[in-house]
Amino acid sequence: MGTLSALFAPERVAVVGATERQGSVGRALVDNLTAGFDGTVVPVNPNYDSVRGLDCVDSVSEADADLVVVAVPASVAVDVVREAGAAGVKNVVVVTAGFGETGGEGADRERELEAAAAEYDLNLVGPNCLGIISTPVGLNATFAPRSAPPGSISFLSQSGAFVTAVLDWAADQGVGFKDVVSLGNKAVLDETDFVATWGDDEDTDVIVGYLESIEDGRRFVETAREVTRETPVVVVKSGRTEAGAQAASSHTGAMAGRDRAYAAGLREAGVVRADSVQDLFDAARALAGQPVPETNGVAVVTNAGGPGVMATDAVGDGPLSLADFGSTTVDALRDRLPGGANVYNPVDAIGDADNDRLRDAVDIVLADDAVGSAVVLAAPTATIDFDRLAADVVDLQATHDLPVTTCLMGGERTRGAADALSEAGIPNYFDPARAVGSLATLERYRSIRDRERPEPTTYDVDHEAADAVLDRARDRNTTRLGVEAMPLLDAYGIPTPAGEVVGSPTDALEVAERIGDPVVMKIVSPDILHKSDIGGVKVGVPHEEVYDAYEDLIARARNYQPDATILGVQVQEQVDMDAGVETIVGTNRDPQFGPLVLFGLGGIFVEVMEDTAVRLAPVAEVEARAMTEEIQASPLLSGARGRDPVDREAVAETLGRLSQLVTDFPEILELDVNPLVVRPDGVEAVDLRLTIEPEP
Amino acid sequence: MGTLSALFAPERVAVVGATERQGSVGRALVDNLTAGFDGTVVPVNPNYDSVRGLDCVDSVSEADADLVVVAVPASVAVDVVREAGAAGVKNVVVVTAGFGETGGEGADRERELEAAAAEYDLNLVGPNCLGIISTPVGLNATFAPRSAPPGSISFLSQSGAFVTAVLDWAADQGVGFKDVVSLGNKAVLDETDFVATWGDDEDTDVIVGYLESIEDGRRFVETAREVTRETPVVVVKSGRTEAGAQAASSHTGAMAGRDRAYAAGLREAGVVRADSVQDLFDAARALAGQPVPETNGVAVVTNAGGPGVMATDAVGDGPLSLADFGSTTVDALRDRLPGGANVYNPVDAIGDADNDRLRDAVDIVLADDAVGSAVVLAAPTATIDFDRLAADVVDLQATHDLPVTTCLMGGERTRGAADALSEAGIPNYFDPARAVGSLATLERYRSIRDRERPEPTTYDVDHEAADAVLDRARDRNTTRLGVEAMPLLDAYGIPTPAGEVVGSPTDALEVAERIGDPVVMKIVSPDILHKSDIGGVKVGVPHEEVYDAYEDLIARARNYQPDATILGVQVQEQVDMDAGVETIVGTNRDPQFGPLVLFGLGGIFVEVMEDTAVRLAPVAEVEARAMTEEIQASPLLSGARGRDPVDREAVAETLGRLSQLVTDFPEILELDVNPLVVRPDGVEAVDLRLTIEPEP
Repeated sequence: MGTLSALFAPERVAVVGATERQGSVGRALVDNLTAGFDGTVVPVNPNYDSVRGLDCVDSVSEADADLVVVAVPASVAVDVVREAGAAGVKNVVVVTAGFGETGGEGADRERELEAAAAEYDLNLVGPNCLGIISTPVGLNATFAPRSAPPGSISFLSQSGAFVTAVLDWAADQGVGFKDVVSLGNKAVLDETDFVATWGDDEDTDVIVGYLESIEDGRRFVETAREVTRETPVVVVKSGRTEAGAQAASSHTGAMAGRDRAYAAGLREAGVVRADSVQDLFDAARALAGQPVPETNGVAVVTNAGGPGVMATDAVGDGPLSLADFGSTTVDALRDRLPGGANVYNPVDAIGDADNDRLRDAVDIVLADDAVGSAVVLAAPTATIDFDRLAADVVDLQATHDLPVTTCLMGGERTRGAADALSEAGIPNYFDPARAVGSLATLERYRSIRDRERPEPTTYDVDHEAADAVLDRARDRNTTRLGVEAMPLLDAYGIPTPAGEVVGSPTDALEVAERIGDPVVMKIVSPDILHKSDIGGVKVGVPHEEVYDAYEDLIARARNYQPDATILGVQVQEQVDMDAGVETIVGTNRDPQFGPLVLFGLGGIFVEVMEDTAVRLAPVAEVEARAMTEEIQASPLLSGARGRDPVDREAVAETLGRLSQLVTDFPEILELDVNPLVVRPDGVEAVDLRLTIEPEP
Repeated sequence: MGTLSALFAPERVAVVGATERQGSVGRALVDNLTAGFDGTVVPVNPNYDSVRGLDCVDSVSEADADLVVVAVPASVAVDVVREAGAAGVKNVVVVTAGFGETGGEGADRERELEAAAAEYDLNLVGPNCLGIISTPVGLNATFAPRSAPPGSISFLSQSGAFVTAVLDWAADQGVGFKDVVSLGNKAVLDETDFVATWGDDEDTDVIVGYLESIEDGRRFVETAREVTRETPVVVVKSGRTEAGAQAASSHTGAMAGRDRAYAAGLREAGVVRADSVQDLFDAARALAGQPVPETNGVAVVTNAGGPGVMATDAVGDGPLSLADFGSTTVDALRDRLPGGANVYNPVDAIGDADNDRLRDAVDIVLADDAVGSAVVLAAPTATIDFDRLAADVVDLQATHDLPVTTCLMGGERTRGAADALSEAGIPNYFDPARAVGSLATLERYRSIRDRERPEPTTYDVDHEAADAVLDRARDRNTTRLGVEAMPLLDAYGIPTPAGEVVGSPTDALEVAERIGDPVVMKIVSPDILHKSDIGGVKVGVPHEEVYDAYEDLIARARNYQPDATILGVQVQEQVDMDAGVETIVGTNRDPQFGPLVLFGLGGIFVEVMEDTAVRLAPVAEVEARAMTEEIQASPLLSGARGRDPVDREAVAETLGRLSQLVTDFPEILELDVNPLVVRPDGVEAVDLRLTIEPEP
């Protein structure tokens, strides 16, 4: 696809379906385009000689345009797009509705549209969208009632109405945009294309998005993880809650996918996820206007104790911590502030502080190496002039080049100051928590930008042996596998206890004699899911009982289900569970994001507490290790209750190897190792269950 | 103390320390009072004949005032208060600073002030405060630069600066107040007094507070739990996080207390806790302007899919759920809305909806019995007039008398509509999440208002037997007790396994023979905390080994610590742990809120996962049962993993009995039963540890 910069900087824009009709989309498009566009606007409509004072052409092929906006009825829209493609146009925006979102005939029409775009290699936005905006060239190719104020935020939205709302609101709020795109049905271009384009765009400081789905999760992640090294991306992905997900899929007709997978995908992509519109634009404002901090230490400076305490509480809610001032700072503050002031963080310059005192306090703390960012709070007093304070903060922020936010606590009287701060890119809020939250967003982005992103390790594995296991299953015409598939794990270097599936009591005894005394014996059958419930598992079987145990297990299985397929009995080395921690490692496959790996503690921790960590597969070992630390029960792995710490590296390696297995074999739909026993000196996969795709 | 209504409705207000001096507090007070007060203002200052055009008197005793505001220097403030008291004044506001907040001399001065107030039975606000406001009589007895707009919110704040800030901001925001009080150092009147007063005040619809501490937690809870049955109370209690708590205690000099205890206290008090300034006033606005819903079902009506999805996500974040419409509603919507609209919740009237269509959709859903509240969202379109929409919503809200909030998504063009909605008490936000959040607050208040609040059960207990156990400990001069105190639990009707502490191997055997075979034996010594670590616990001891086991336990203890006090050996019935769930019940004592009870699952659940429920003691059984459901691991008590559900009622009763024990014996500082084994048919307290207060 390459970059879409030409889409946002056309020279001649044709509006197909331009019309004089009051209230029509075609008329709004022409008006919006002529309002400020640097280039030429060409109305296309065979029924008019001119539209809104511009000469009109009969067909798109006569327009000689490099961007075509299609606003004709759905029934003829595809023809127009073909005609444009045939005429050599590369960039097309289809605002027309009546495609995939209506189902049935509309969906067919959307497939034709896609085919046309593919045939002519078109950059096509929409259909069923509001259009696009690019402020540097004054391009407003939308039918929104208002264009965007200029700025450095580029904005994509899966809801056209949300674009309209944001444009209307932004002008008031001092929020400005570089490019805006309403994605519509994403028949051709989707979020990934725009993230890629804006990642290469020097005039875009932040990418902001509202998404209800992500078309191709893997492609998005691969693109965004590169972009977010330099350009922050903030997204509201709706459908977070079950109710929301249902609403989203009925709105867009798209399968919304599971939020857990989205969370893992967005994390891997380095996207800052916002939960609400307010969070989204608070984050955008901070990232667009302020530098990224170099440490997570924040300084709080206030003329009022209460707001200082509220700000400090908010610091404790996020990834920031109160900076620990050096002695030079404390001494300088003590020199400058009166008795009764607090010279430690949060700095309270107290209620009679004038502008000079507050300014000096901010100046002093910003010079401290432990301070990565600062929040300045001021309640209205007789001695503080908000306009001067704003000017001082703007000046100090620029001098020290550290992120600063403010909380000027008042109404009308703070307006001018707030505008001056906004002009300088400094977020200002009445609520101390929002001012601190903006700094927290910058810190979150820092940790995303700076995190290690090594390639997942490629392990030396026995691919053929694994393939043979899956082949045998296919030969048996089964899709559910159990311990008989343990050789899969062996092939991929995941330690398993010694053991074998045998078909006779004599073989059982032979295996037992080889691997130790006592042994564990389990019935092996794809038809018996809950082996323990039917007495299909025997623990601590001494050699002298192995023969009888075999017969007994088979009898129980037959008794339980006479027609069950019985693959035999597994004879396994008895693992000392007490010396280790039982964990679960698992994988499954998400329609958008592909294979995921999961880690959690065994039994109730996963089942009842839902205490798990999830990542996209394949996972690098450093990320896999982070999974072992992310779960709430993590201290149990570190040797809580007087035990030795277990081998987290071995867990990480297992997650890595499992990742590789499910990446190598896409036919593995789900796989659970439960338990994976983790000890101070390594891991052992004791039980296994997996589901493979039926043969096509 | 009675009600403080006279404080807020004086007829003559004296300002002691009134002056002409520019920028002085005394001048600001006189100016603010004369600006709108219905009554008479009397400046008091021997150095002036008149102040700001009002005749000045020399002393407070000449002022004949029913409210005295003291703004003289700290050194003479106490004398002025005494003089006012002697002159028969009952209501005094001390704005003067330099008391407890400065420590040392100031703290002494504050004690004198308290003594003076006690002597004359004064209602005294402050010292070190901004003053008080009451809008119905135009009283602004503060030195704030701006008074409060009138309204039905009464507001208390432990930060004077925050009052100033809020007053300045409120006028802009359409937030109005009945009374406002800056609490200052709370030498006499504190939050509880004002909550009580406003609870009785017909003109106060909501009580809002900013608190850094609560003076007397128990008194606050007792008062607020009555008030909140009719008047909602919303509070930011700062010091939520560790950093915040430190900042709060350095700001107010008050011991901040542990947030867990505050959370339990505020919960019991029925207070809606807000985490930020924005949350606080969003909640206040909703509670002041809208009725309380009758069900938690919410209807979402929108002209734009995306915002509808965002609102639905926000519904899933809180206590609301999407209302399930009846068939009449769905039919009516289907009749009224075009094809392509969504007639299920969230209702999408689609982008070409005009005002009539949107109005009718709202009208239809509000008539549904499943709908307890509604949020109306509108993006700007050519067919929607926001002013008309606002008028329609105001009208429909009044007709149906259900809580409604709106999200008119735009800037400038929504201003007039927003003002009209605000005038009618309907909260309107750009962010769908905030509009939904306001409805969630109303639902939270409903569940507080409607919750059962039975008195805790008083159990029939053997108080004397319990007293005897504690007496014996005091005789031994010990403050740490272990299993030798099990008779405490027996006395309070909490089941324990059969067992006894014995002093000889012969007695040990005798007890063992009485209670069963095998038994558990433990060394009993206040000096040995971790009995297991030194081999001081023997499980499964058969009768033939009891004698030797006794000798061995004593030898181990002597060996470990030759001078340890050894009380003997406990011989206890062996409890079958496997049949039950190990839990912990505990109590401790908070400086503000007194005894607390805690419940959690044993071992790692409390220690690592910190998965506990906490309440004030004594706890009613219905609340105690709720504690067993509140913990995350609750499903384990319901029979997860194929086990029988355990006896939650027995746990609740144990918590109730334990509550009574620690309420009856305030000398019990901390007590843990760990484990309390809970089975399908009851509980057993297996081990016990407690700390009692040293004798005075």
